[in-house]
Amino acid sequence: MQQYPSRLLERAVQAFSTLPGIGRKTALRLVLHMLRQSTVEVEQFAEAIATMKREVKYCRSCHNISDTDLCPICSDSRRDAATICVVENIQDVMAIENTMQFHGLYHVLGGLISPMDGVGPSDLQIDSLVQRVGESQVKEVILALSSTMEGDTTSFYIFRKLAPTGVAVSVIARGIAVGNELEYTDEVTLGRSILNRTPFEGNEK
Amino acid sequence: MQQYPSRLLERAVQAFSTLPGIGRKTALRLVLHMLRQSTVEVEQFAEAIATMKREVKYCRSCHNISDTDLCPICSDSRRDAATICVVENIQDVMAIENTMQFHGLYHVLGGLISPMDGVGPSDLQIDSLVQRVGESQVKEVILALSSTMEGDTTSFYIFRKLAPTGVAVSVIARGIAVGNELEYTDEVTLGRSILNRTPFEGNEK
Repeated sequence: MQQYPSRLLERAVQAFSTLPGIGRKTALRLVLHMLRQSTVEVEQFAEAIATMKREVKYCRSCHNISDTDLCPICSDSRRDAATICVVENIQDVMAIENTMQFHGLYHVLGGLISPMDGVGPSDLQIDSLVQRVGESQVKEVILALSSTMEGDTTSFYIFRKLAPTGVAVSVIARGIAVGNELEYTDEVTLGRSILNRTPFEGNEK
Repeated sequence: MQQYPSRLLERAVQAFSTLPGIGRKTALRLVLHMLRQSTVEVEQFAEAIATMKREVKYCRSCHNISDTDLCPICSDSRRDAATICVVENIQDVMAIENTMQFHGLYHVLGGLISPMDGVGPSDLQIDSLVQRVGESQVKEVILALSSTMEGDTTSFYIFRKLAPTGVAVSVIARGIAVGNELEYTDEVTLGRSILNRTPFEGNEK
C-alpha cells in the first residue's frame, strides 16, 4: 500500500479516487497539480463543485438540468412543443442539440430500465412523460434511446404506456453509421438498414 | 461548441477540465457522477481539496509534503541521517519508500532544471540542499533523478555545487530493468549496464 506523507494529501487523493475512472495514481497526480495552483484557484474549484451540487435544479417539465424551474429549451417559444424526444440523460440532450436537426422539446428519463442494476420503471421519469403527453397537445414522441437491451426494453415499455393516449410514437433510425463501410457493419444493423430503407433523394452524403 | 443547459454545471465542468489529462467530455462525466451523489459527499469532496490546499505544509528540512513542520521521515530517529537521497518530487519519495531498500533521508527538489520550461536552479531546492549538507554530518548524497536530459543536467549541476563540501555523491544504477529481455533493451542502456557491471553474487533475481 502507498504511504502518503500527509493525511491531508491522503484525504484529497481519496476524494478524487472515488470518481469513476480515476485510480489512486491519477488522483495523486491531480492533487499534486492542485498543490501547484494558487489557493484562490483551488478554492474556486472546490466552490464551483459544491455550489453546483447545492443549487442546480431539474426542469419541472423535461427533467433536464437547469438553473431555472423551467429549462431554456422548454421555455423557448420558438421550439415545437408538439414533438417530444425521449432520451436517457442530459449528455444525450447535448448530443442531439449539437446536431441542430431537432427543434422540439425533450424528456430526460434519468436512466434506462435495467433489472440487472435494479433500475425499474418507477425509478425513471416515465410516469411524468405519460402525464405530460396526456396534458398537452403533444403529437409525436420520438424514442431516442441507446440500441442496447436496456434501451430497447425501455422503448417498448414506454410505447405500451403511451398507447392509450393515441400519440404517435417513433424511434430514431438504426442503420449503418455515416462514413462506415458496409463490409465492417454487423449483420443485425445491416439487416435493419435494408428493412428500413428510405427513398433515394440524390443528396445522400 | 457544447451548449450546457446550466451555468452552474458549465462552471463545474470548466473547473474539472483545468486538471491535467481531463478533457471536457470526461469533466462532464465526473460532474454528472457528483450530481448523483449526496450533497454531504460532494461537500466533503470539495472541503477535502480546499482544506488540503490551505493547510498542507512542506517539511522545512526535506521539502516533502507534510502535516507537520518536520515530516515523519525527517523526524524518525531510526533513519540514517548521514545519507540523503535527492529526488524530483514527492511521488519519487513514495516510490522509493515502497521499495523498502532505503533508510536514509530525502531531499525533494520540486522539479528538474529545464531551460525549455523556464525552470532554473533557483526555482528548485538546490541551495537548501547544499546548506543542509554543509550544516549536518551528511556523508553521502544519492542522486535519484530521472534518466533524461533534464535529470542528467540537474544531477551534474548538483554534483558541481556539492563538490566544495567534500561529501560523497553517488547516482542510482542505470541498467536493464529487472525482468526485461536483453534483446529489447536500448543500446545506450545496454552499454552502460556492461560498463557498470557488478560482481556476481549468485543471488540475482
